Amino acid sequence: MNDILQRLTETLESRKGTAADSSYVAKLYNKGDDAILKKVIEEAGEVLLAAKDGDRQHLVYEVADLWFHTMVLLAHKDLSTEDVLKELARREGISGITEKASRK
Amino acid sequence: MNDILQRLTETLESRKGTAADSSYVAKLYNKGDDAILKKVIEEAGEVLLAAKDGDRQHLVYEVADLWFHTMVLLAHKDLSTEDVLKELARREGISGITEKASRK
Amino acid sequence: MNDILQRLTETLESRKGTAADSSYVAKLYNKGDDAILKKVIEEAGEVLLAAKDGDRQHLVYEVADLWFHTMVLLAHKDLSTEDVLKELARREGISGITEKASRK
Amino acid sequence: MNDILQRLTETLESRKGTAADSSYVAKLYNKGDDAILKKVIEEAGEVLLAAKDGDRQHLVYEVADLWFHTMVLLAHKDLSTEDVLKELARREGISGITEKASRK
Repeated sequence: MNDILQRLTETLESRKGTAADSSYVAKLYNKGDDAILKKVIEEAGEVLLAAKDGDRQHLVYEVADLWFHTMVLLAHKDLSTEDVLKELARREGISGITEKASRK
Repeated sequence: MNDILQRLTETLESRKGTAADSSYVAKLYNKGDDAILKKVIEEAGEVLLAAKDGDRQHLVYEVADLWFHTMVLLAHKDLSTEDVLKELARREGISGITEKASRK
Repeated sequence: MNDILQRLTETLESRKGTAADSSYVAKLYNKGDDAILKKVIEEAGEVLLAAKDGDRQHLVYEVADLWFHTMVLLAHKDLSTEDVLKELARREGISGITEKASRK
Repeated sequence: MNDILQRLTETLESRKGTAADSSYVAKLYNKGDDAILKKVIEEAGEVLLAAKDGDRQHLVYEVADLWFHTMVLLAHKDLSTEDVLKELARREGISGITEKASRK
C-alpha cells in the first residue's frame, strides 16, 4: 500500500517535461509556486471544514488532497516525499514533548 | 523508508491510552479536535512561509510537521494514514484533469 | 473614509434578497457557509504570499479582500462589521499583554 | 463607532518606539514578519472553527482577532487601515461580478 507514495512521486516527476495543458499537475507547475501554495492552504482549510462536519470519508478525501498538493509542491522544488519520510523517521524515537521543546 | 508511516501510525494509536501529560500527542488528543485543527492550519501556514523563504530544508521540515499533525487528526478520529494512502491509490490512473473535473 | 465599512455593510445586507446570479456576493450567500469560509482561508493565504513578496500595494489589496470576505461571512450570519468594531473598542484600554493573558 | 479603527491605528503606530516586552504588539513587531503572518493564518483558522461551531459571539471575537492582526501586519509594513478602507472604497460601485471578473 505504501508504494503509492513512491509511484505518485514518480508520476509527479514525469509531469515535469509535459505541456501545461496535458494534466492538472503540469498546469500547476506552469502557474508556479504561488498557485501551488494557494492550493496547499485551501486544502488545509477544507480539512478543517470536513473535520468539523464530522464526515469521516470526506475528511480522508481532503487529507489526501492536502498531501497530494504538498507532494506537487515538493516536486516543483525538486524535493520529494522521501525527504519528508526521512525527516519523520529522524524524529522517531525522540519523544514528542522533548522534540517539541527542542525546536522552540 | 515508507514503513515510517506505518510505525508512526502505530505510535499515534498507542498514545491514546496514555496520560495527557505523558507526550505531546497525548496532550493534543486531550485538548481535542479544535486544538489539533489549529495545528493543521498553522503548519500549512508555515509551509507557505518556508516555501517563500526558499529554504528547502526548512520546507521539508514544515511539510513533515503538517503531515504529522494530519496523522494526529486522523488517529484522533479513528482513521489512519492507510485510509489516505488508499484514497491516493484509488485516484491513481485517473488523469489529473479528469479527476479534477469529475469532482467539480 | 470610515463610512465605507457602513456603506459596504448596507450593500451586503441588500444583496440578501437578490437572485444568486445577480452578484458575486449573492452567489456566495447561495453557496453557503463553507464556500464563504473557503474564501476567508484562501484570502488569508494570499495575504501571507503578498507580504512575503514585499509588494505593498498587493498586500493592501489582499487585506481588503480578506476583510471583504469576513464581512460577507458576518452578513451571512446576520452579524455585522459593527459587532466587530464594538469588540475591538471593548478591548481598547486593555493593554495587549493583559488582554492576551486574560484570554489564555 | 468607526473611530475605533483610527484610534487602534494610532495605538499600533505608537507601539513602534516601545520596548519588545512592553506590550503584546511590541513583542510581535520585534519577532518580525513571519510571527505576525503566523498569527494571521492562525486567526483565519479560528474564524473557520468558530463559524462551524455556530457560536455567533465567538465568531465576532475571532473576526476581531483576525482584523487586529492584519492591522498589526499593516503597521509593521508602514501601511495602515486607511489604505485598506481606500481600496474597499475604490471597489465600491463596481459590481461584485464585474470586479471579480476583472481581476481573474
